[in-house]
Amino acid sequence: MIPTHAKQVFQGIIFSVWQWEQQMFDGTTKTFEKLKRPDTVNVLPVVGDKLLILKLKQPHHQAVLALPGGRCEEGEDFLATAQRELLEETGYEAEKYALWRSFQPEEKIEWTIHTYIGHNATQAQSMAADNGERIEPLLLTFEEFLLLTDDPNFRHPDIAHVLLRARFDKSKRDELHTLIFGRK
Amino acid sequence: MIPTHAKQVFQGIIFSVWQWEQQMFDGTTKTFEKLKRPDTVNVLPVVGDKLLILKLKQPHHQAVLALPGGRCEEGEDFLATAQRELLEETGYEAEKYALWRSFQPEEKIEWTIHTYIGHNATQAQSMAADNGERIEPLLLTFEEFLLLTDDPNFRHPDIAHVLLRARFDKSKRDELHTLIFGRK
Repeated sequence: MIPTHAKQVFQGIIFSVWQWEQQMFDGTTKTFEKLKRPDTVNVLPVVGDKLLILKLKQPHHQAVLALPGGRCEEGEDFLATAQRELLEETGYEAEKYALWRSFQPEEKIEWTIHTYIGHNATQAQSMAADNGERIEPLLLTFEEFLLLTDDPNFRHPDIAHVLLRARFDKSKRDELHTLIFGRK
Repeated sequence: MIPTHAKQVFQGIIFSVWQWEQQMFDGTTKTFEKLKRPDTVNVLPVVGDKLLILKLKQPHHQAVLALPGGRCEEGEDFLATAQRELLEETGYEAEKYALWRSFQPEEKIEWTIHTYIGHNATQAQSMAADNGERIEPLLLTFEEFLLLTDDPNFRHPDIAHVLLRARFDKSKRDELHTLIFGRK
């Protein structure tokens, strides 16, 4: 997305800013600007016949509903991020991680969100919240999970779109149920 | 979203970067980082019983399907942006602009996308594309517009979500049809 001849003009804590000259259709050139940020990884943990999501509260922010997850660290692969974030945020470990979706939310940001399904998740240690936010785990049925599409505080628009389709289209719903829980 | 005591640490062409110290629940402080970019405004022009959308092609990018629209200029109000961008990109003018949706796509970016419905749009001048991209206008029926939810090149995820709901829920579809075309 960002061409190899682009120059980095700023490095922040999360974001870096890149600029480059690009030739247009009429032969003129124009300076373009895009950002990079570390990829993020989310996990949908399957706990028996329930799905684990989190209610997150940061200071001065409204509570949001989100999957466990976070940013990839330097040199860390996506699966390792999935395992680390799930354990850190919930104390759970999954038996098997299957990549479900990879989604690039913004045209102007080089950033992919990877979402795994964490099959057969069980609690390995107690929850140790980091200092930054209060985390409350919620165990939802499949039907309750689908209804997150109606909740404005649900943080994952690409997943909300998949859930909405599943709510209204039985074949998509059955497909998603099998993907998450396996064949009956 | 970005607190008033935040410091600007970078100003780019589109994006600016802001940082600030924040006290956490456990009393420690942490440096936070967010971005600002100018708000953007889109217009859904209603041309008789059709809807006007654009096929946009920039050098080195795949063509995308998008509503006419663009960034607010310094000091420009949203309605003025809607009128200017519609005229610049399509040559059309609408008789009445009604704000349809305001959407904040990213938690870490202070940025709102405002979408207007441009009622009774007519061609006032010929299309004068800017040098940066090739623009092809498409006139869609309401049914074709709803099917944009299946097109991965459709650029507006928040609107795709509304369209998907309308496809599967007749009362939402009737509501949207009335909002766009008025009462039968």
